[in-house]
Amino acid sequence: MVDPRFFKTAGPFSLGELAEICGGSLSEGDDASRSFADVAPLQLAGPHEISFVDNAKYRVLLADCGAGACIVHPDLATSAPAGMALILSEDPYRAYARVAAAFHPPVPLEPGVAANADVHPDAEIGEGCEIRSGAVVGRGARIGPRTLIGALTVVGENVVIGVDCRIDCQVTLSHCVVGDRVCIATGVRIGQPGFGFAVSTQGHLSIPQLGRVVVGDDVEIGANTTVDRGAGPDTVIGQGCRIDNLIQIGHNVVLGRGCVLVGQSGVSGSTQFGDFVMLGGQAGVAGHLSVGAGARIGGKAGVMRDVPMGATVMGTPAIPIKTFFRQQAILARMTSRRRGNENG
Amino acid sequence: MVDPRFFKTAGPFSLGELAEICGGSLSEGDDASRSFADVAPLQLAGPHEISFVDNAKYRVLLADCGAGACIVHPDLATSAPAGMALILSEDPYRAYARVAAAFHPPVPLEPGVAANADVHPDAEIGEGCEIRSGAVVGRGARIGPRTLIGALTVVGENVVIGVDCRIDCQVTLSHCVVGDRVCIATGVRIGQPGFGFAVSTQGHLSIPQLGRVVVGDDVEIGANTTVDRGAGPDTVIGQGCRIDNLIQIGHNVVLGRGCVLVGQSGVSGSTQFGDFVMLGGQAGVAGHLSVGAGARIGGKAGVMRDVPMGATVMGTPAIPIKTFFRQQAILARMTSRRRGNENG
Amino acid sequence: MVDPRFFKTAGPFSLGELAEICGGSLSEGDDASRSFADVAPLQLAGPHEISFVDNAKYRVLLADCGAGACIVHPDLATSAPAGMALILSEDPYRAYARVAAAFHPPVPLEPGVAANADVHPDAEIGEGCEIRSGAVVGRGARIGPRTLIGALTVVGENVVIGVDCRIDCQVTLSHCVVGDRVCIATGVRIGQPGFGFAVSTQGHLSIPQLGRVVVGDDVEIGANTTVDRGAGPDTVIGQGCRIDNLIQIGHNVVLGRGCVLVGQSGVSGSTQFGDFVMLGGQAGVAGHLSVGAGARIGGKAGVMRDVPMGATVMGTPAIPIKTFFRQQAILARMTSRRRGNENG
Repeated sequence: MVDPRFFKTAGPFSLGELAEICGGSLSEGDDASRSFADVAPLQLAGPHEISFVDNAKYRVLLADCGAGACIVHPDLATSAPAGMALILSEDPYRAYARVAAAFHPPVPLEPGVAANADVHPDAEIGEGCEIRSGAVVGRGARIGPRTLIGALTVVGENVVIGVDCRIDCQVTLSHCVVGDRVCIATGVRIGQPGFGFAVSTQGHLSIPQLGRVVVGDDVEIGANTTVDRGAGPDTVIGQGCRIDNLIQIGHNVVLGRGCVLVGQSGVSGSTQFGDFVMLGGQAGVAGHLSVGAGARIGGKAGVMRDVPMGATVMGTPAIPIKTFFRQQAILARMTSRRRGNENG
Repeated sequence: MVDPRFFKTAGPFSLGELAEICGGSLSEGDDASRSFADVAPLQLAGPHEISFVDNAKYRVLLADCGAGACIVHPDLATSAPAGMALILSEDPYRAYARVAAAFHPPVPLEPGVAANADVHPDAEIGEGCEIRSGAVVGRGARIGPRTLIGALTVVGENVVIGVDCRIDCQVTLSHCVVGDRVCIATGVRIGQPGFGFAVSTQGHLSIPQLGRVVVGDDVEIGANTTVDRGAGPDTVIGQGCRIDNLIQIGHNVVLGRGCVLVGQSGVSGSTQFGDFVMLGGQAGVAGHLSVGAGARIGGKAGVMRDVPMGATVMGTPAIPIKTFFRQQAILARMTSRRRGNENG
Repeated sequence: MVDPRFFKTAGPFSLGELAEICGGSLSEGDDASRSFADVAPLQLAGPHEISFVDNAKYRVLLADCGAGACIVHPDLATSAPAGMALILSEDPYRAYARVAAAFHPPVPLEPGVAANADVHPDAEIGEGCEIRSGAVVGRGARIGPRTLIGALTVVGENVVIGVDCRIDCQVTLSHCVVGDRVCIATGVRIGQPGFGFAVSTQGHLSIPQLGRVVVGDDVEIGANTTVDRGAGPDTVIGQGCRIDNLIQIGHNVVLGRGCVLVGQSGVSGSTQFGDFVMLGGQAGVAGHLSVGAGARIGGKAGVMRDVPMGATVMGTPAIPIKTFFRQQAILARMTSRRRGNENG
């Protein structure tokens, strides 16, 4: 059960309603009218809660699970304990996403501008916006309807933000144009000047950074991530990208649609990603490179060359994943062999 | 000598008092009544100051040191210059910690709520708390006695914070329950939604993140670190953990007691650490793994499998440290041999 | 053309003026009186704009470029299309820096203290400073003339900041002395206590952190970077260093002059850098090491030993770059050979 101090729960929903919400099918013999009060994780769920299993690794947990219902892939159905109602889905995680969102719709805004927010008279604030305590909104900024600006967030001069965005607290936005339905977590920095200067032992010379950051619709950006503005061209975050915490995106970077960047990864200046690129945790991509659509870059990889469309790479310098693991295997064999010799 | 603009110094203390404070023993013939005004680093200490040597690497500095007294391991005692008083300790760093804390106790709070702090009338603020300028405390938040809330920090709705905590400025806390004597540095983000969504080229679908962050007693968390709340279960930081700067802790992570996470390391979602795990700088642990109690993960390691209790691992993918260095040695030999052939 | 909502443009300037500004020479036959309205990136520039090519990789873009003028290295001059005016420079990037700065001088301050800034009456604010909305300036702080303090920035007690500094919004400064003409980006944290404690399963024991951070003149520090104060000695950032985003600098670290630290890199406690060291993106240096002047540490490197002056290293543990790439080549050959055997 969720902590009611932090989460409100809608519902209850019947099993039949839940199957419809998530596009899953009921297991034969299950009672569609059975009522459920909430979602819950596998290990904690009780008889009035519905859970899910996405990872075959957790099959054993499923067998012991006390949940009244579970969303599972048909292949795992036989591992469920007797009496558990099942919603069968080819994509249990996606199905669970819909069910959980039904029980936990976004918290509605409380429209208005906090008394101590500092909103410039020339800023345009759309209808239904909520501007929280201590937020600072600069001259000429334009914020679309039904957007949340969190406490102590700074929206710089002339920044444009779309409709239905959720900008959390303590964020800094400058020199940027943000699309619709964008979620930006606490501590994110967007639009500061990039790392551009001419190196010299006589003193490095800064280059004015004259581009913007353009954030597409439906983008989500995690806590304390930084996105530098372009040096001349813009830095572009494509529609639907998901960017985790503590990520660095350099100036002029262009990310295609739906890219997924995992925590603490980084993309250096002027590198371009196609659509739906996956960048693993703590991975990094050097500057001025091109990463093709659908490429997957493993965790901790250090990419020093272009990555072709659809490729999966790993290591530093990053190489095709099969080669990477073959190298690891060879090294492992050499080590154990040599050790044998030394001991023998 | 410390900069008096930034630090007040208690004392003076006699050599005898200092030995008692730190549980060390005086070197034979030293005058227990000799008075000391402050601690100081080895290279800078003068005759009225006491220093320490923890690292045998600094033995040569000890010989040249001008400190009036020094806390040293008995093995290093012979390296001290004549006339320097010695406090002998099996654990000089720990002993120094106690001595330094005697000279520099925590700065006392100035209880009260700053005029421009925005504290919701339904929040509960314990006795003796100091709530600094511009802080925002939400509806239903509960802050225990003698806790500091720094300038421009945001404490979200219904957040619970224990007694004697020091929450620095510019912090964001939401969806969390924080224990007693917890220190949270500037820019830390705790409780934001984790990186949870069902991936799809039709558009990634977010999963409501319905857990909390539970921070144990005596935890310390460094600047700009991010701790996501659980997806369903809680994210848990065990009692006494020390977490450095710019660290990412994903949703559902559970850290045991006393874990030490060094700067820029990261732990991916649902991974569990036993007690007293050490995670080196810039190391990363993949999701859904288990790291046993007392395991040590080297700097920059990329852990892709469970780590057994007490193991020490390194590299990406992380392997036992001996194997790692053996592989490095083999590679090095191959390189120099081949080079020989090429030149020969 | 830059987005006029975010950037004002000075000028126009004649080709002759621009050549003089940047110390370049005109190509024979070019009309020195030809007028230019702005700088622009190679791919976007039009006939009234001037661009530059620094990277031979972009030679092909030069041939297709619509810019009225371009700053190029003499070697690339023949690749320029007919009709394009050329300014020849041995260092086109540096030349471009000067030209771009002429078109885009720093935005002048609007001196004064925002009504809702919280400046302690005992703080000294120099003439011509701009203190923005919600900033907090503590007791005894001293801020030099013509310095900008951004919105919601916290300047701690007795902190000293020089003249002509630009401290962006949401920054935290404590226990530090900052030089002249320093630029600090949004979300930077300077002066918090370092990661110092005596490890013990009986409970880690914190060491009072009694040093400061000393930031030299002309330093620039990027968004969300953290610089811990010294434990006893100071942490020192040498004159003219350029530090990118999300970088961790531990206590007692000393950086020489003009060091360049690229995004997400880190330097552990007590390590010392000579002048003009380059630290690549996501690279890390262990504690208590010495890195010689002019050394270059590759992206993602993990430095575990001292690095000699002028050396270039890579890998983890970091080794000379030639050895590193030789090892990669050997591994690659072994993999393909073995694969041949397996297939054959």
